[in-house]
Amino acid sequence: MSLLVVGSVALDSIQTPHGKVEEILGGAATYFSVAASWLTPVRVVAVVGDDFGEHHLSVFRDRSIDTTGLERAPGRTFRWSGEYTGAMNEARTLDTQLNVFERFAPKIPPSYLESEYIFLGNIDPVLQFHVRGQLPQARLVGLDSMNYWIQGKLNDLKKTLAAVDVLIINEGEARMLTGESNLRRAATAVRGMGPRFLVIKRGEYGANLYTPDAVFSAPGYPLDEVKDPTGAGDTFAGGFMGHLAQTGDISENSLRRAVIYGSVMASFAVEDFGLRRLLQLDPAQIAARFREFRNLTYFDA
Amino acid sequence: MSLLVVGSVALDSIQTPHGKVEEILGGAATYFSVAASWLTPVRVVAVVGDDFGEHHLSVFRDRSIDTTGLERAPGRTFRWSGEYTGAMNEARTLDTQLNVFERFAPKIPPSYLESEYIFLGNIDPVLQFHVRGQLPQARLVGLDSMNYWIQGKLNDLKKTLAAVDVLIINEGEARMLTGESNLRRAATAVRGMGPRFLVIKRGEYGANLYTPDAVFSAPGYPLDEVKDPTGAGDTFAGGFMGHLAQTGDISENSLRRAVIYGSVMASFAVEDFGLRRLLQLDPAQIAARFREFRNLTYFDA
Repeated sequence: MSLLVVGSVALDSIQTPHGKVEEILGGAATYFSVAASWLTPVRVVAVVGDDFGEHHLSVFRDRSIDTTGLERAPGRTFRWSGEYTGAMNEARTLDTQLNVFERFAPKIPPSYLESEYIFLGNIDPVLQFHVRGQLPQARLVGLDSMNYWIQGKLNDLKKTLAAVDVLIINEGEARMLTGESNLRRAATAVRGMGPRFLVIKRGEYGANLYTPDAVFSAPGYPLDEVKDPTGAGDTFAGGFMGHLAQTGDISENSLRRAVIYGSVMASFAVEDFGLRRLLQLDPAQIAARFREFRNLTYFDA
Repeated sequence: MSLLVVGSVALDSIQTPHGKVEEILGGAATYFSVAASWLTPVRVVAVVGDDFGEHHLSVFRDRSIDTTGLERAPGRTFRWSGEYTGAMNEARTLDTQLNVFERFAPKIPPSYLESEYIFLGNIDPVLQFHVRGQLPQARLVGLDSMNYWIQGKLNDLKKTLAAVDVLIINEGEARMLTGESNLRRAATAVRGMGPRFLVIKRGEYGANLYTPDAVFSAPGYPLDEVKDPTGAGDTFAGGFMGHLAQTGDISENSLRRAVIYGSVMASFAVEDFGLRRLLQLDPAQIAARFREFRNLTYFDA
């Protein structure tokens, strides 16, 4: 089934101990779409400027991502520039130029309206809520957010949380959102705000899934080298939502498999700069890494 | 089969956000022995002072731990006092009085000499090496160490590493020992120093096992509340070595199960102060939590 994502498309300049790239295609909706496109058809809603080139657009087209909802606005495309050092756990933002993204007002094309699997990327919760309201056919709505909105627009975020099915955030955000330092208690508190399902991303330590029935713990993939962590979280969300949309199955086991697909896609993403590795995948590589993830935690009881 | 542990016995004073205890029985060899005693017969080599009471000794006896090697020396027993605050990831040591432990020279009683499963707790690597040499029948020798010895006696530690089968350390120690920030590369480097098997403990994130064949990742147990983390690492080692000694099986699958038993025992230990929870276990509770650990990572592929 089709998967709709709303979020940012950006041009990123990134520096890590492994190298440096200038103005490469990035943004949460981009990483999400490309990752999910290996599993299911994807539709994107985002805004770019009049400097957004044909070679950028072709990245989406080559992955058969529906760009009907990719609005072109007068002005420059969103730019982000950041640097990773040391253990590369967190980016240091060097520069942010929101440009056309500053006045992003997501417009859902008529051909997208019947979408059943939706992901509301990390944008103003007021916009997320507005988009959610336009998609009454949605079967499963996923949400991302960040510390900026937790601190600045908590009430709007809570309203949005009450209208979605699954929240995908990182550990620090879960703690900040709830004021609970214990992760299990934080998870219970988040689920009390609305989402039936919660995924907490833990960076190199993997991810946890909290459902009404259980806790599931997915391991981090033991990579020899992380070249560029940019987009890993969005890629995770793309793999997670992509699997659910592909199967149309939101049972406990399917949600667990979805966390593994998210982890698989994210583990590929960080192996090279930007989208490079995600664009060079094939289904056999994805299947092989899925099996590796299974072997990572398997023991014969 | 019998499991021999060499290490410290101490009286601990501990403060956490959940309370405070004074001079309770602790020490690495104590936590290790009590945890392992649920799985296999245990023999302890340690030293205590003439202030070590009958009620302390009875803790070992009640768990059928062989105390032939528990030497009583003139002077006071090792005291440690520490405090945990906030996320309780690390103890702040308030006071250390080595007392009789300062001149600890482990003596292996004749009845222990045929021991096949050995754990060399965190003591001077020179002593660890000396003990190792006295136990030629050993089938599997495990080792613990810490930053203090990595910084202060690296050459002695390396000599000891070359003479053991499995090292159990935490993430920070693995990185310090090898100078590698990437954990997988650090693991490869450690295994290059001698031990065939390596367990890296990652606190609330679980533990990884590195063997010649594979990497295994065990999840952290999602506890609602950690009351006292003291001894969690030693308890883990006790569960790990206890399972291997119990089964006499050091296959890949048995090592993986051993990591889970270590995790099970450590997850109990932190639920209450000191040894309290570990002394109130029963085999059914241990088996139930083992199954919970399996469910935590299980998915139907």
